[in-house]
Amino acid sequence: MRSPIPDYLAEALGSVEFDQSGATADYIPELADADPDRLAVSFCTEDGRRYSQGDADVEFSIQSISKPFVYALALADRGFDEVLAKVGVEPTGDAFNELSLEPGTGRPLNPMINAGAITVHTLVGPPGATPEARNERIVDGLSAFAGRRLRVDQRVYESEISCAYRNRALANMLRANEIIDEGPLVAVAGYTRQCSLLVTVEDLAMMAATLANRGVNPVTGAPVVPAAVVRQTLSVMATCGMYDGAGDWMTRVGIPAKSGVSGGLIGALPGQAGIATFSPRLDRHGNSVRGVDLFRRFTSDMGMHLMEVPPAGPSVVRSRREFGHGPSGVEVVSLQGEIRFAGAERIVRELADAPPTRKRVAINLMRVSSVGDVGRRMILEAVRRLTLDGHDVYLIDPDRVLPDPDPGEGGRVTVVSGRDDIRRLMSK
Amino acid sequence: MRSPIPDYLAEALGSVEFDQSGATADYIPELADADPDRLAVSFCTEDGRRYSQGDADVEFSIQSISKPFVYALALADRGFDEVLAKVGVEPTGDAFNELSLEPGTGRPLNPMINAGAITVHTLVGPPGATPEARNERIVDGLSAFAGRRLRVDQRVYESEISCAYRNRALANMLRANEIIDEGPLVAVAGYTRQCSLLVTVEDLAMMAATLANRGVNPVTGAPVVPAAVVRQTLSVMATCGMYDGAGDWMTRVGIPAKSGVSGGLIGALPGQAGIATFSPRLDRHGNSVRGVDLFRRFTSDMGMHLMEVPPAGPSVVRSRREFGHGPSGVEVVSLQGEIRFAGAERIVRELADAPPTRKRVAINLMRVSSVGDVGRRMILEAVRRLTLDGHDVYLIDPDRVLPDPDPGEGGRVTVVSGRDDIRRLMSK
Amino acid sequence: MRSPIPDYLAEALGSVEFDQSGATADYIPELADADPDRLAVSFCTEDGRRYSQGDADVEFSIQSISKPFVYALALADRGFDEVLAKVGVEPTGDAFNELSLEPGTGRPLNPMINAGAITVHTLVGPPGATPEARNERIVDGLSAFAGRRLRVDQRVYESEISCAYRNRALANMLRANEIIDEGPLVAVAGYTRQCSLLVTVEDLAMMAATLANRGVNPVTGAPVVPAAVVRQTLSVMATCGMYDGAGDWMTRVGIPAKSGVSGGLIGALPGQAGIATFSPRLDRHGNSVRGVDLFRRFTSDMGMHLMEVPPAGPSVVRSRREFGHGPSGVEVVSLQGEIRFAGAERIVRELADAPPTRKRVAINLMRVSSVGDVGRRMILEAVRRLTLDGHDVYLIDPDRVLPDPDPGEGGRVTVVSGRDDIRRLMSK
Amino acid sequence: MRSPIPDYLAEALGSVEFDQSGATADYIPELADADPDRLAVSFCTEDGRRYSQGDADVEFSIQSISKPFVYALALADRGFDEVLAKVGVEPTGDAFNELSLEPGTGRPLNPMINAGAITVHTLVGPPGATPEARNERIVDGLSAFAGRRLRVDQRVYESEISCAYRNRALANMLRANEIIDEGPLVAVAGYTRQCSLLVTVEDLAMMAATLANRGVNPVTGAPVVPAAVVRQTLSVMATCGMYDGAGDWMTRVGIPAKSGVSGGLIGALPGQAGIATFSPRLDRHGNSVRGVDLFRRFTSDMGMHLMEVPPAGPSVVRSRREFGHGPSGVEVVSLQGEIRFAGAERIVRELADAPPTRKRVAINLMRVSSVGDVGRRMILEAVRRLTLDGHDVYLIDPDRVLPDPDPGEGGRVTVVSGRDDIRRLMSK
Repeated sequence: MRSPIPDYLAEALGSVEFDQSGATADYIPELADADPDRLAVSFCTEDGRRYSQGDADVEFSIQSISKPFVYALALADRGFDEVLAKVGVEPTGDAFNELSLEPGTGRPLNPMINAGAITVHTLVGPPGATPEARNERIVDGLSAFAGRRLRVDQRVYESEISCAYRNRALANMLRANEIIDEGPLVAVAGYTRQCSLLVTVEDLAMMAATLANRGVNPVTGAPVVPAAVVRQTLSVMATCGMYDGAGDWMTRVGIPAKSGVSGGLIGALPGQAGIATFSPRLDRHGNSVRGVDLFRRFTSDMGMHLMEVPPAGPSVVRSRREFGHGPSGVEVVSLQGEIRFAGAERIVRELADAPPTRKRVAINLMRVSSVGDVGRRMILEAVRRLTLDGHDVYLIDPDRVLPDPDPGEGGRVTVVSGRDDIRRLMSK
Repeated sequence: MRSPIPDYLAEALGSVEFDQSGATADYIPELADADPDRLAVSFCTEDGRRYSQGDADVEFSIQSISKPFVYALALADRGFDEVLAKVGVEPTGDAFNELSLEPGTGRPLNPMINAGAITVHTLVGPPGATPEARNERIVDGLSAFAGRRLRVDQRVYESEISCAYRNRALANMLRANEIIDEGPLVAVAGYTRQCSLLVTVEDLAMMAATLANRGVNPVTGAPVVPAAVVRQTLSVMATCGMYDGAGDWMTRVGIPAKSGVSGGLIGALPGQAGIATFSPRLDRHGNSVRGVDLFRRFTSDMGMHLMEVPPAGPSVVRSRREFGHGPSGVEVVSLQGEIRFAGAERIVRELADAPPTRKRVAINLMRVSSVGDVGRRMILEAVRRLTLDGHDVYLIDPDRVLPDPDPGEGGRVTVVSGRDDIRRLMSK
Repeated sequence: MRSPIPDYLAEALGSVEFDQSGATADYIPELADADPDRLAVSFCTEDGRRYSQGDADVEFSIQSISKPFVYALALADRGFDEVLAKVGVEPTGDAFNELSLEPGTGRPLNPMINAGAITVHTLVGPPGATPEARNERIVDGLSAFAGRRLRVDQRVYESEISCAYRNRALANMLRANEIIDEGPLVAVAGYTRQCSLLVTVEDLAMMAATLANRGVNPVTGAPVVPAAVVRQTLSVMATCGMYDGAGDWMTRVGIPAKSGVSGGLIGALPGQAGIATFSPRLDRHGNSVRGVDLFRRFTSDMGMHLMEVPPAGPSVVRSRREFGHGPSGVEVVSLQGEIRFAGAERIVRELADAPPTRKRVAINLMRVSSVGDVGRRMILEAVRRLTLDGHDVYLIDPDRVLPDPDPGEGGRVTVVSGRDDIRRLMSK
Repeated sequence: MRSPIPDYLAEALGSVEFDQSGATADYIPELADADPDRLAVSFCTEDGRRYSQGDADVEFSIQSISKPFVYALALADRGFDEVLAKVGVEPTGDAFNELSLEPGTGRPLNPMINAGAITVHTLVGPPGATPEARNERIVDGLSAFAGRRLRVDQRVYESEISCAYRNRALANMLRANEIIDEGPLVAVAGYTRQCSLLVTVEDLAMMAATLANRGVNPVTGAPVVPAAVVRQTLSVMATCGMYDGAGDWMTRVGIPAKSGVSGGLIGALPGQAGIATFSPRLDRHGNSVRGVDLFRRFTSDMGMHLMEVPPAGPSVVRSRREFGHGPSGVEVVSLQGEIRFAGAERIVRELADAPPTRKRVAINLMRVSSVGDVGRRMILEAVRRLTLDGHDVYLIDPDRVLPDPDPGEGGRVTVVSGRDDIRRLMSK
């Protein structure tokens, strides 16, 4: 069987192919000269399978799409407190205030605008790192996200640096406001270098998939940034990632995203996939025209909107049966599906509303696909309470979906995972 | 066994109980006189179970928490186009522009600020509805969300209307900008009446749970608003629901929420639960001090942050086995867990990477807890392609987790759901 | 001889007559219906002579041109402190902030914007005046400026009040901010009534001439407002009177001015004249297109710009001669022209640099046209010092151009005003 | 006699001497170290007489007070069109928009803010001038205003340039917006050099007096800039010269002024004097605390407010008498004082209202101290019309106060200036 996914992606590209509206960014010579007809898409699942269509092997400079990844590196290297003290997390609303610096503090409003990104750039690596060490750390870090060694396009770098007046203005203002310690020209040079890294749409999809996979590159397995950093980064992408209104993107697409002036656009679907598109013509906000259309299509076709409420599945409590009789009998509560807060609540509700009547109680996790952190804690708390109520509690968990099963403080549980042990328990 | 959830909620209340910072809203006499020490919390699961602690039966006026629900009613009654033409979806950033009207159009920036909410109020019910009919529709609609008949507190209404100069200013400005058709005084009276509806924290939790449950009241089963309206409403709550920065709430709490000046605060966790707190002392932004603390605690304790990436579960493809030999044999692909985009991708990948070798292929859904819309479409597409490849395809689905199993365009599938039929198929 | 002034004015009208650009104000039905081709100009000198051309007897509603005059009445009735506490004096810059209220205080930025004018309206008359008494005071006051009884155009009033949503918004906001005490609807009704007073271009020129004449109507001689109030009013007109940029008007025209949406435009040339034009088509700022052109022409033709430095005249010290010999001789210092600070300085310099050698010293004011306040004080101080130096000092002042000639503190002076006395003094 | 002016100035200094509020500018090391107790004042009349008190010979860097003078040089060198295309003339209102650049064009709002002053700096000298030539032109030009060779304080220059991040930010932004052509670092270096010129309070008074004297240095007689440039410069000083609100300064002081962070403050009184004060402690707006107080005192003591309406002098038409009888008789209209628009109007009114009855008419200017441009043109027009009416017209003008007396187009006049000729004319 041929996978339908490449067909779907090809069809999606076909549906936007003939839209020639928008224009390439004109303020950087190297970008203005880009072939405006390029078009590519790539999906990368959270376990590293990539599907691509179109000009998927064409390299282009990463530009602003570097921002969320360098933000993640800075958070990982310096901690939340230091980074948040220098750069806020608020969307900028309209662009009337050209600098988007917070009145009073002079902090850039968020890390996705240039002022914020230049500041974040200076916060990568250990305090006191040389500019060279910092640049190296950024190339290493972004390469780890992408799973291959990225390199700077020297011509793009030089083209951009020669007309980087606006960024120099920002860097000088940040220095005047004591937001950055670095020399303004050095900061802009480093930031411009970061923006000049060459990527393909496949690299971008892999980078986004690394975010979607809790910060672990799904192919190399390298842990690039911690999960808490990913959460912060995705949150900021959700509200500040696109050049147009935060609300418009949230309501119409609902995927944490970031666009760049070279025509790239990425989205990260937590726990599922990274997505990237490439099409250089931009709308008046600076977002890729065909990229935005593709994302709207993906959201609508694939129910990827963050606020999409999934249809209710069958109850997480699949059955409740008694095996054997008298003292040797056991009551088995069989669970199924993914157990997050709502599922765990139903389990404890079940046990609280109709307490088990047998001394021995088994919680059967054989059909459970995953247990979230809160689910784990609530199940263990139920185990603890059952123990205190006088029950002997068993956890049937052959796949070890519930890690570290210690109920603590008076609770006790026997994990049953061998096929024979399970049969023995339930046959009694 | 006693449920640990009430204990958890009581403990959470205890942790904030002694915080007396903040002050009750002082600009409305009736609110200024509220008992500032009131404290309550309520959780309502998406299937309607409520857990409450503290002053859970104390009534207070709903105030701004009415806004998302009335927005949902307007979207349902008038459609997205008409409502979006009058009210935007962008967060307001700082409050320097007192009116938060979009330059040029004069549209309120979003439905959660007063100018937007007054406009939305006038868009409920059919075009041309009398003010009385509109007020009645709103009481009916909010009562449907709450699952009980709500009533207006006439004293609060009169107290607020007597000093509603600011809202009258907004309504007149909206009329001047031709955003509302209604007389400004009538619009403010209706809006003030909507804000004066009395609710308890349990009502609010149920109302939020109705959003979390795709717009269906989980106790009464009444379909209050369509799923698409819920998605829009939750999106707007996520970026505009709290009086302080959209980015701060998104990064630190990450739950679509709405606060009100009477001290209420709600959050809706799509597919899981509605949450409400009540504590009248407000911070300088106008959000309940202890309510915000409680939500931060819930997010952190229960992994409720929208951007929390769940840990990867076991593969959705549980096993692949062959039964029988030769032409009478069958290859069974057994799936498990919830199947959304990422899961479905793994299924089609499995079938594409290693095409079945037997003529007969069965897809076993017995351990699947739910199939999302995109999952359903991708499985059916795989079925269709297998048919076209010459296979006879079976769907083992005793619980009918995959609705309407028609692969279309040349595809054909036999659903096997009876226990005996299943055994027969797999024994061959 | 026929005066060339009417010819000049007719020629000026002719030069703009065919400009049909701009449009009448469309948001008030009665104004939209005005004949857009009307064109008139009137000059009124500070002693009350009027020159008019064009549709000088056509009545139109005064609209915003009432603002500076009502501001002057409020300053006169309530004092500077009370009025300045409620309304600022700063130009608004661009119009992005629709309300132009000062952040923090909620004060309107200046009395020439609607929010400021509505506030000022409520500050006319004694505290606690009834709305009727206040309206009456305003009609009386503006009539005193104009020198004839003005009346309200009831149709314009009703047309405007029926669509005064924007002003009602402002008044409600002002009430919410505790800037006005009055009920918002009453304030707007009174303000609208004030704007509906009917005037001709000749009335406006006379009103402006009353400002130019230190607050005294040059024809009736009625003292309408004190000189300090005039100074404040003209200052505010200079920076806030025109709807477009304060700086543009100051640099290009340099005359304190005020425009109104009905097409009127006034300018007051301190100490010289009041000017008014009438032409209903407005530019995008809301100023009369042809009116602005006419004022630019007047400034350029007549050197009326405030910052126009007059060419240096001959020295204020015309001559210094000795009459008679020995003890009976007298030294006569003859002055000429207007004596303000610079002139007075030259007089005291003359006397300090070359002290008189005779015991008797006469200061001859016969050719002096006027003595300003600082000039008077400096001359008297010189007289006092000459006395202390041992001189007998005479002031030859037949026209009494130096009022109240008391040098004080040891000074002594003999005023000589009779023709024979003068001859006797100078012949000795 | 000793002049009272030095006494007055000493007394004024004494009245503010003990006010130690405010603080020296702290962001430039060299300025922070200035002696905060310095206090000086200087008046310079439009004919070059200086009166000074206090630390009048202490040199300090000119800082922002260079702005109006360099603006005047740029206007003189490049013309109004080129300068206005790059820098506006509007006050900035509040400082919320840190850059004060006009939305859309990116033009600095006015030449008195740093962005505007840096731009203006680059517009001095001929197009294409080298930075050195431009710097030299500025030193030359400001020295011409001051009447002595000024020099740069190299230590202040280096101190400021080492922390000029904010100005570099502005210059880069201006370059990005294509407002300046110059390299940003070069522009900032030149601008900083201009600000580092050393002046005394006496220099500043002379510089201001040069503005007050139509651009001609009153001591050296050097024509520094044309009169039209002075008018523009004074207009901009009136609305944008002080760091606090344009309206506050205009209403309370009413003198075109400019302050600098080193503690200087200048005011120019058109046609009368230049004033300068020096006191380094600044208020929160950045204006010298004691300097502002002194200017308020000067305005109030000396009636220097631009909007001060002078008291009406005696009529400009002093008398009208007939000499001789019959055909040999002559009617003499004797004028007096300064003749600007209002005076000229009264003359033509007199001649129009009561036309001369004799064939010969003489206009006697012997007591006229000066005739403005409009006055001259109106008198000549009256002469022309009298000629056309059949009169023989004489101008008695021994002091030649009416230059170039050609009535044109059919007018004819005989100027009579010799004592005997005058006697002969009037005796007939």
